[in-house]
Formats: sequence, C-alpha cells, structure tokens
Amino acid sequence: MEKGNIKISMAVIRRLPKYRRYLEELLDKGIDRISSRELSKIIGFTASQIRQDLNNFGGFGQQGYGYNVAALYEEIGKILGLDNRYSTIIVGAGNLGQAIANYTNFEKSGFIPKAMFDINPRLIGLRIRDIEVMDSDKMEEYIKENNIDIGIICTNKERAQDVADQLIRSNIKGIWNFAPTDLDIPENVMTENVHLSESLYTLSFLLKHNSLE
Amino acid sequence: MEKGNIKISMAVIRRLPKYRRYLEELLDKGIDRISSRELSKIIGFTASQIRQDLNNFGGFGQQGYGYNVAALYEEIGKILGLDNRYSTIIVGAGNLGQAIANYTNFEKSGFIPKAMFDINPRLIGLRIRDIEVMDSDKMEEYIKENNIDIGIICTNKERAQDVADQLIRSNIKGIWNFAPTDLDIPENVMTENVHLSESLYTLSFLLKHNSLE
Repeated sequence: MEKGNIKISMAVIRRLPKYRRYLEELLDKGIDRISSRELSKIIGFTASQIRQDLNNFGGFGQQGYGYNVAALYEEIGKILGLDNRYSTIIVGAGNLGQAIANYTNFEKSGFIPKAMFDINPRLIGLRIRDIEVMDSDKMEEYIKENNIDIGIICTNKERAQDVADQLIRSNIKGIWNFAPTDLDIPENVMTENVHLSESLYTLSFLLKHNSLE
Repeated sequence: MEKGNIKISMAVIRRLPKYRRYLEELLDKGIDRISSRELSKIIGFTASQIRQDLNNFGGFGQQGYGYNVAALYEEIGKILGLDNRYSTIIVGAGNLGQAIANYTNFEKSGFIPKAMFDINPRLIGLRIRDIEVMDSDKMEEYIKENNIDIGIICTNKERAQDVADQLIRSNIKGIWNFAPTDLDIPENVMTENVHLSESLYTLSFLLKHNSLE
C-alpha cells in the first residue's frame, strides 16, 4: 500500500503494534534506550529485521546509541493513528460485546465506545459502564448523527453481513469484525477481522505435532 | 519446525485454518471441487502460493481436476489436529471467559470446556451452560485429576503470569492467552496469544492512512 507518503507492506504494519507493546513494557521498567540487538532478544525478530522495519518511517536509531524508547513509542503510536480519537459502536451486546465495552484499555488508546446495539429486547436499555444498549433499528440514524468512525461487530455469523450492510449504508469508516466469517465489504471501508478459531486451531496444530516428537 | 515428518513454517501453519474455513463455506454451498485459481479468487492468496502451501502435505490436487473440497477440508482438519479432542479450562469467568464458554463452535471442533476458575466469590458457583465456575485455589488439583490439555487465560494482565505459572506447574500442554501481555512460558508448553489491541491498532493505521489519500 502507498498512502500519505507511506509505502509499506501489511506485514510491517502488523508488526508495529507489537513493537509498541514491547516499548511500553520497557518504559514501565524505566528503560530509556535500547539497541536493535537488545530489542531483538525481547521481541524475537532479528536485529536486522527490526532496523529495516523502523527505517520505513525514517531512521529513529542512532549508531552506537540505539533507540530512544519514549520517542520511538510515541512515533509508532502516531504512525498507527493512536494520536487520533475514534468514536465506536458495538453491535451485539452479548458476552463478547460486553467484554469489549468493559475493556477500558481501548478507550485509553482513543477508541471511545458511544453506544451498543442489539435486537434482543431483554438487552435493550441495559448499561455497560455508561454505555447504553439501544435497539438495532436506531443504529443507522445514530451513526450518522454522531459521526461514528468504527463499528465493532460482535453478533453471530448469521447476522454479521446484515449488520455490515447497515454500517456501510451509514457511511462508517471502519469495521472491526469478531463474527467468524469474512464479510463482503467495499474497499473504501477499512476492515479488520478477528478470527479466534484460527488462533485456536494453530494451537491445536502445535499440540498435535509436539506430541508426535 | 520439523515434527512428525512435517517440516513447515509458522506462516504456512497460520494459513491452514483459513483454507479450512473457506473450504467449509464451499462445502456449505455444495461445491465439491475447485481449482487453485478459483480458490485464489476467494481467499486472496495467489494460486501458486496455494499450490505450494498444500504441497507441503502431499499433493492433494490433480492437474485438470483441481481439489476435492471435502477431502481437502478433512485432511487439513487432521493436519491441524482437529480429529483430536481436547479438554480445556477457562481461567477468568468475566465477560470474555463467559463469551468463550458460551461459544459452542469451539466445542464442535473438539475443544471441550470442562470447568471455569475465578478468584471472585460472586462468580464462584455460577454455571455458564453446564460449565461450573470453581475457586481458583482448586485449579491445579483439578487439572491433574481431569487431564486437562489446554488452559484458556481470560484474566487481566496483572493476574496472567501467576495463572500461567499455576498451569505450567499442573503440566498443562497448551495455553491460549487472551491477557494483553506476553507470558513467560517454557518451550514445551505450546502457547498462542490473542492480542486484540494489535488488530485494533492495525485498523487504526488503515483508517489514518486511508483518510490521507
């Protein structure tokens, strides 16, 4: 992809949050600078991979000094767009939707849940923290009136495409999909899928082939 | 990695569940054979990538015929170890733990939740479907007595390493970790981390750089 002067592969993009997470742990420990070699030991990527990845965004490191942890953490946050604030809604107020609504770390990173939506009358009217569960019928209007950026789909597989269609009609900018299916979404709406079963099946593979040793 | 005659990169392993998911959708639609080119259009990998990936496990495809969807689906399931059954426990009975306990698809794939554990007295004794929430104090004994294979960590970041240490002491075979931290786990215990924030931050990157166009 090539956007806003940044030409960069999805593989690199997907490594950036990992760098940021490890840098945050270093900051918590009071470590203020680190070499690509030391970083390599912690993260598990090679030092040359790390230098190459970070060079994509201008050279942060200095020969013989390494990386300034706070500056690099900050800069990666900006590249990831974490200096922005995003209004979000959660569609599907079951356990998973509630777990996400309750997880305040996303809010600290700038993703502000404004409302939840469900079709189940028993859930409509509930509040998770201060986030109200509203009737899904009101969703399209709510998104437009409140300039919602991201729709988080926490429904079952069967409802997910209908929900996505509603979100798209309401001019949502991004969709974070937890339903175990790939949705049909136009290219101008950014999408990330979380397929939990893929992670579980990878674990299953590792268990099976480990026990064959 | 090289285990049980299979020498294969983690990148290929991680693509297998995706193949399986798309093959399942084809089966649902009654499609019984498919070429690597058609598969490529659906999955988005190149046809040559697909042929190369699947050749790792013996040539399933036949020139001019393509792949037998049901046979390939079955075979990938076996490679992933989905012909096995795994006993699991869920540690942390909050919303996320309950969401996983309620998600019966994992059970259909052979991952059987036997018990949940929590330290919160208000949750102990609850039942999610027929899965009892027990006191975390009883966890190590329970794992050993019931031959539990996989521990699913759904606690907060702060408790996660302690829980992992308990699981390891109880000779658990695998850990599926949802806590937003990387755990210190010996190499003989297979581990998969689900870092939801990495997915969300990738979406954030896409939103930021899309809007710069």
